[in-house]
Amino acid sequence: MAHALRGVIAPVPTPFDADGSVATELFTAHAHRVLADGCVGIAPFGTTGEANSVGLSERMSALEALAQSGIAPERMVPGCGVTNIADTALLSRHATDLGCAGAMLLPPFYYKSVPDDGLYDYYARVIDTVGRDGLRIYLYHIPQIAGVGMPVPVARRLREAFPEVVVGLKDSSGSWESNAAFLGIDGLAVYLGSEKPLMEALELGAAGTITVSANLNPGPIAEVIRLFDAGDRDGAARVQERVSAFRTLMEGYPTIPMLKRLLAVATGDARWAAPLPPLPAVPEGEGRDLARRLADEFGILAAA
Amino acid sequence: MAHALRGVIAPVPTPFDADGSVATELFTAHAHRVLADGCVGIAPFGTTGEANSVGLSERMSALEALAQSGIAPERMVPGCGVTNIADTALLSRHATDLGCAGAMLLPPFYYKSVPDDGLYDYYARVIDTVGRDGLRIYLYHIPQIAGVGMPVPVARRLREAFPEVVVGLKDSSGSWESNAAFLGIDGLAVYLGSEKPLMEALELGAAGTITVSANLNPGPIAEVIRLFDAGDRDGAARVQERVSAFRTLMEGYPTIPMLKRLLAVATGDARWAAPLPPLPAVPEGEGRDLARRLADEFGILAAA
Repeated sequence: MAHALRGVIAPVPTPFDADGSVATELFTAHAHRVLADGCVGIAPFGTTGEANSVGLSERMSALEALAQSGIAPERMVPGCGVTNIADTALLSRHATDLGCAGAMLLPPFYYKSVPDDGLYDYYARVIDTVGRDGLRIYLYHIPQIAGVGMPVPVARRLREAFPEVVVGLKDSSGSWESNAAFLGIDGLAVYLGSEKPLMEALELGAAGTITVSANLNPGPIAEVIRLFDAGDRDGAARVQERVSAFRTLMEGYPTIPMLKRLLAVATGDARWAAPLPPLPAVPEGEGRDLARRLADEFGILAAA
Repeated sequence: MAHALRGVIAPVPTPFDADGSVATELFTAHAHRVLADGCVGIAPFGTTGEANSVGLSERMSALEALAQSGIAPERMVPGCGVTNIADTALLSRHATDLGCAGAMLLPPFYYKSVPDDGLYDYYARVIDTVGRDGLRIYLYHIPQIAGVGMPVPVARRLREAFPEVVVGLKDSSGSWESNAAFLGIDGLAVYLGSEKPLMEALELGAAGTITVSANLNPGPIAEVIRLFDAGDRDGAARVQERVSAFRTLMEGYPTIPMLKRLLAVATGDARWAAPLPPLPAVPEGEGRDLARRLADEFGILAAA
């Protein structure tokens, strides 16, 4: 995993104009902010980024806008996985040609309970269809939302068959048993979807974390990794405690709608507040209340 | 529901060449065959048609190929629903401009447990984005696969708000309670996804059935509806018995892979046998065994 990003990666949310198109200047401004505040990279068009609520052509143009705004493509791991080989390859080729660090690929998530061989064949054919030596794939395991997970044996088989291509994995299952199993796959750069077990994951060789919290609290999460890497485990553990307390507080709210409402409060731009259907918006008052609490308890969004 | 198709509609499967592209001549030949054998229409790119395994541009070109092969667009209700408003509108506008009877729309199926208002807003925005008076929508309820269903209250609300547009619904839930609830929505043309409760559904005003079995057994299913409409309920019930026995037999096999294997046996073209990943293929021997049984017991595929 020599080339994988080490640290905190933000799965940035996607802001929309009233007509449903991506509000590009808000999108790029937020990406620059999290990178300035401690993230080593961004993962646009993940679950948090409402990737599957955005049309294919707009996903590509918004990714280009991030690059044109001055974000180095090698700091981006965009979500490129849809339900079919052709369009997944289309998005992945586009990201590869743009110079992105990788393409994060959901399993095909329409048919449920598909056999392991079917999932393996799917990825093998995506790789073949992309047809680019520069392709780097990050597998994405989030069974509670996608309805289809990435079985550990399939991830291992793909890593072994395509060691130059299948370089990373994000595990958003929230299961430590799952986390540990993926962390045991040789040479795979594993990122947990939650920063709560970050210390334990780093001990097992995790590359970092790709967590929704990185959109609000990137500095302290990055600090845990910095102190860990410097050999200061006590210092890292102290910061981890605050980092975990923040996550626990946030877990009481609907993740994507509340993140977007908080960014609307912080930026003063109401466009941030509204996810695309079918996701609902969080009422403004709830966002203001939580923003106040985050400012008081964690010094986050203190300018709001 | 004056303009909805009355009868049996076949959700036709999609055959692929080795490179994953649609095998157009096999596709159109099968569509012509089921229409000649008793179907009143076809529903390409449904779940059976592996719609979500096919890229957007190819879905549109394959639909055009069906029309160019001489199938009247007013006999086609293609699946046009993906996970986002923009591409769902793109496919629906294309189908509308082609003159199709309607566009069948899955609920957005990535995020689970979304609120009813979010689903309603999603369809309302699709309708607005399509921007065509000729748009006719068939809702599609298949929660066991999509992971997101069409709640009865949302279907009723959409029907009432857009009576010229939301004209039909396919219920593949397999639940009679669900079937009956949708059949109770005024003016909605309801098609069950199974022909087993066809008689009961017709009694409650069903428009027909859109069933995978229509790809193999269209004549007898159409005969049930013809006899029912002619007032011969005893005759209809006798045919229904055989129709249900066929369905029960088929339920013992993986639906899409076995249908495709049987068509490979019947046509002698092995391309039919292979679904796109992640779906697996059924071994040739199993297909031959079942084909023999279908020929013996039901006179289906007797030429094989």
